Amino acid sequence: MKPVNLSEKLAMFSTHWDPHVVADYNQNEIMVVKFKGEFPFHLHEETDDFFYVLEGEMIMDIEGQPSHPIKAGELFVVPKGVVHRPRAENEVKVLLIEPKGEPNSGSADREPAPKPRI
Amino acid sequence: MKPVNLSEKLAMFSTHWDPHVVADYNQNEIMVVKFKGEFPFHLHEETDDFFYVLEGEMIMDIEGQPSHPIKAGELFVVPKGVVHRPRAENEVKVLLIEPKGEPNSGSADREPAPKPRI
Repeated sequence: MKPVNLSEKLAMFSTHWDPHVVADYNQNEIMVVKFKGEFPFHLHEETDDFFYVLEGEMIMDIEGQPSHPIKAGELFVVPKGVVHRPRAENEVKVLLIEPKGEPNSGSADREPAPKPRI
Repeated sequence: MKPVNLSEKLAMFSTHWDPHVVADYNQNEIMVVKFKGEFPFHLHEETDDFFYVLEGEMIMDIEGQPSHPIKAGELFVVPKGVVHRPRAENEVKVLLIEPKGEPNSGSADREPAPKPRI
């Protein structure tokens, strides 16, 4: 039980699309992640997907709908079942919340490796 | 489904200890809140309590343990059942996550009014 400094955690890795767990909230993992480029379109069948942009800007593409730019200081929740694709032209730093064990790619990968914990 | 700008939401009210719901994540409410002064010691019997400091600095007192200063850019999760008291000498702006319907004061108030949604 102690404060978690997100900048310090983000300085501990440089990989993209590689969420690192920094805390737990009930049955959810609180993660920091760096995005650059495009992730595949996917959905989470049983959970919403929480994004809060800490630094930089990302785009959330939603299948069949206009895209949403999301800037630092803004959050976005993708409802469960909605097909989406995060992407970022330049590196963006994001706080991410998903239930423990939920794969990044949603239904596309049912047996994910545990995410690293820092 | 759209980005939520937390500064804009925080500019919509000036009261302290008065969380406003800005989004939902599964069965949780995502809230912004301003703290100044001391909240009573309390606990949440059935849930962890998530705090992320957006601006300013708060203190989290934990019963029987040293206090934790929490600065902007830091998060803190109070595990369920742990007696705690948030406080702040100067106004601090916080992102708060709790299950829908959970009273601010935990077990002290079992029939809370719904929190305002902005």
